[in-house]
Amino acid sequence: MNNQIDFYFDIISPFSYIAHKKIQIIKQNKKINFNYKPVFLGGLHKLAEIDAPAFNKFKIKILQSDCELVADKNNIPFIWNSKFPINSLYMMRGYLFVEEKLKELYLDTFYNAYWRDNIDLSDEIELTKILKSLNIDDKKFVEGIKNQLIKDQLKKLTTEAFDRELFGAPTFVANNKIFWGQDRLEYAVDEVSSN
Amino acid sequence: MNNQIDFYFDIISPFSYIAHKKIQIIKQNKKINFNYKPVFLGGLHKLAEIDAPAFNKFKIKILQSDCELVADKNNIPFIWNSKFPINSLYMMRGYLFVEEKLKELYLDTFYNAYWRDNIDLSDEIELTKILKSLNIDDKKFVEGIKNQLIKDQLKKLTTEAFDRELFGAPTFVANNKIFWGQDRLEYAVDEVSSN
Repeated sequence: MNNQIDFYFDIISPFSYIAHKKIQIIKQNKKINFNYKPVFLGGLHKLAEIDAPAFNKFKIKILQSDCELVADKNNIPFIWNSKFPINSLYMMRGYLFVEEKLKELYLDTFYNAYWRDNIDLSDEIELTKILKSLNIDDKKFVEGIKNQLIKDQLKKLTTEAFDRELFGAPTFVANNKIFWGQDRLEYAVDEVSSN
Repeated sequence: MNNQIDFYFDIISPFSYIAHKKIQIIKQNKKINFNYKPVFLGGLHKLAEIDAPAFNKFKIKILQSDCELVADKNNIPFIWNSKFPINSLYMMRGYLFVEEKLKELYLDTFYNAYWRDNIDLSDEIELTKILKSLNIDDKKFVEGIKNQLIKDQLKKLTTEAFDRELFGAPTFVANNKIFWGQDRLEYAVDEVSSN
């Protein structure tokens, strides 16, 4: 029995944040193993020749109201970040850099800071505060995200996503089937639950 | 009490087909007035500076599997049209041309032909057959869709959609709130039901 769901995400993606919060609830009730797969969404969009909704001045308005609506319906605290979008490369490399046991807390903290508390994560002072709260040495963090192995790892995961024919985040893969967008999380859960 | 939902659609849009089928079920159970608003999706995408998913070779694969998945979950018969996409301009003008009492049947027939029965609606012979089944004189139809008033009407509806900050189909507007995509139909229904 395969109860595994791959979850491709980027911290910059508001619907990935919503999916992450929904997953935390699902995990309390179901024995499903969510395999967190960080990608660099900007890079994935480039590979798939897609203009991100964040860069279309018409689409971004509905993206915002739609996120607010979905978050509200799911009782997920959400504030549209006033500095959206920012470059997520260092945050995503950071996720790969921090040790395994810290990854969930790291992700939660960054997600909450950006999509719940409207913090500008491109501001070094804010970033340093967050790293401190996680007991991460900021100098080591900066070295880590410049490490070639970490860079390569994120590139590899992003390419893997593209090779699996994904083009956005969040995307779920269950039983080799692709479920695209937070709206399909429940379908992915059904897929592995009915095994 | 306002129990009205505007439904912006194009026959070429597979998710608009799915939304239309879901609306037919909803109407059996709820007193909601769905106001059908035809748009020319190609024109709307152009106004909103959007590259349609149909024209991205990576995205279109998931668009197809996602439509199949959603149709299946909703018990809606669906076959991905092997001639997708085609130009929907004449079909949408035709919807405006036919008399009021025929509009629902016209739409149902075209939707079923294209998204249920995999018929190539860019083929004149197929089109003539369909018009015949609807008792529409094909010569009058061709004159009608070339009529400047009809052309202007579709252009006006498409511009109205853009002016309301819509950029795709299906989109629903209820209580002046925008609900984007077939996934949000139930939200739009909730919006007018809780009045």
